[in-house]
Amino acid sequence: MSAPSKTVELSTEAALYQEIQHFYARQMRLLDESRVQEWADTFTEDGVFAANAHPAPQSGRAEIVEGARRASQLLADQKVQRRHWLGMLEVREAEEGTLTAHTYALVINTPQGGRPTVEFSTSCDDVLTRENGTLQVRSRQVYRDDLPRG
Amino acid sequence: MSAPSKTVELSTEAALYQEIQHFYARQMRLLDESRVQEWADTFTEDGVFAANAHPAPQSGRAEIVEGARRASQLLADQKVQRRHWLGMLEVREAEEGTLTAHTYALVINTPQGGRPTVEFSTSCDDVLTRENGTLQVRSRQVYRDDLPRG
Amino acid sequence: MSAPSKTVELSTEAALYQEIQHFYARQMRLLDESRVQEWADTFTEDGVFAANAHPAPQSGRAEIVEGARRASQLLADQKVQRRHWLGMLEVREAEEGTLTAHTYALVINTPQGGRPTVEFSTSCDDVLTRENGTLQVRSRQVYRDDLPRG
Repeated sequence: MSAPSKTVELSTEAALYQEIQHFYARQMRLLDESRVQEWADTFTEDGVFAANAHPAPQSGRAEIVEGARRASQLLADQKVQRRHWLGMLEVREAEEGTLTAHTYALVINTPQGGRPTVEFSTSCDDVLTRENGTLQVRSRQVYRDDLPRG
Repeated sequence: MSAPSKTVELSTEAALYQEIQHFYARQMRLLDESRVQEWADTFTEDGVFAANAHPAPQSGRAEIVEGARRASQLLADQKVQRRHWLGMLEVREAEEGTLTAHTYALVINTPQGGRPTVEFSTSCDDVLTRENGTLQVRSRQVYRDDLPRG
Repeated sequence: MSAPSKTVELSTEAALYQEIQHFYARQMRLLDESRVQEWADTFTEDGVFAANAHPAPQSGRAEIVEGARRASQLLADQKVQRRHWLGMLEVREAEEGTLTAHTYALVINTPQGGRPTVEFSTSCDDVLTRENGTLQVRSRQVYRDDLPRG
């Protein structure tokens, strides 16, 4: 395997790829644990969260935190533990120091005393940026596979 | 944690592991987006794709592209979005500059207006090689968990 | 993207993150392939495996191998192939040279001739240590999402 000869150039890409995986693990766990303000803080102040399941995008942290709070409350009322799995990450460098990150995302719901269901299969297109060394989502577009792309 | 003392040797393995994860994310997205020629091009010219669900292996890119085209058409006719999730990657160096990569793969189907289902749970054994710096699949063997290994 | 300027510090974290992903892929495949002694050997000699689905923790390799043997036999009797998917890894350095690793874990069951089901959705909190350069689990706490946390 000629991997060793590619180490130098790969190491930067590998570090970045790992960093984004780690970022998503932290970010989605915050949402799944209803830590909605910390979740919103993983977006830029003017971050946008759009989905083909939503009538309009959430724009800015205030709207993002409010959307997460409503969703978390609804799940708590139903005694459902939701988990977001992101995977199959593709990363591309984009303009103005941003990255585009493409993932698949599964939403798994488990009711207390019940069986887990794959609630939604989606794809997720992010524009990521870095503020003070920390990755943030500038914009996210989620497409549920069961709905028209919009 | 004594990780720092292992950094040098690990960095090559880490870079390679990340590269293969990235390769699979790209590769399977091509299939899921029905980009069948680009999908076939992720195999070597004489690549082989075998599965315990298939009566015979697909041998060479022409057969691989034709198999993918038929499968994509069938899903389009049924208005089903299919997504392949690969995970739980194990990598081992093998003979003649090749790598063996072992993954689990889930096939998730979502019909328009319907609910996602885990269609198949499988394991996947690949022999990977590198051509002009780019990873390619020389041979793939997929085992659906619901069928005899063959 | 300012990633290059962070390469040095990230490379160690990236290597460690990758190493743990690789470790989990190996470890859970051992369990899924009923290689129960090798599975138990991924824990420290005095390792502990606790779960909110178990009446008491398994303590030490002898109990861990015995628990795995019983579970594997039950699945074999039912002609079920089980697969453990770990993902959404978060790693934190902890005291005394240990690491805490947090994952989500899905348990997928496929009966011969039948369809796969998501049997359990869980979260998993590990304390990892290193012996002779190799990662091992010192303690694991699994929480099934359908059961009270404990």
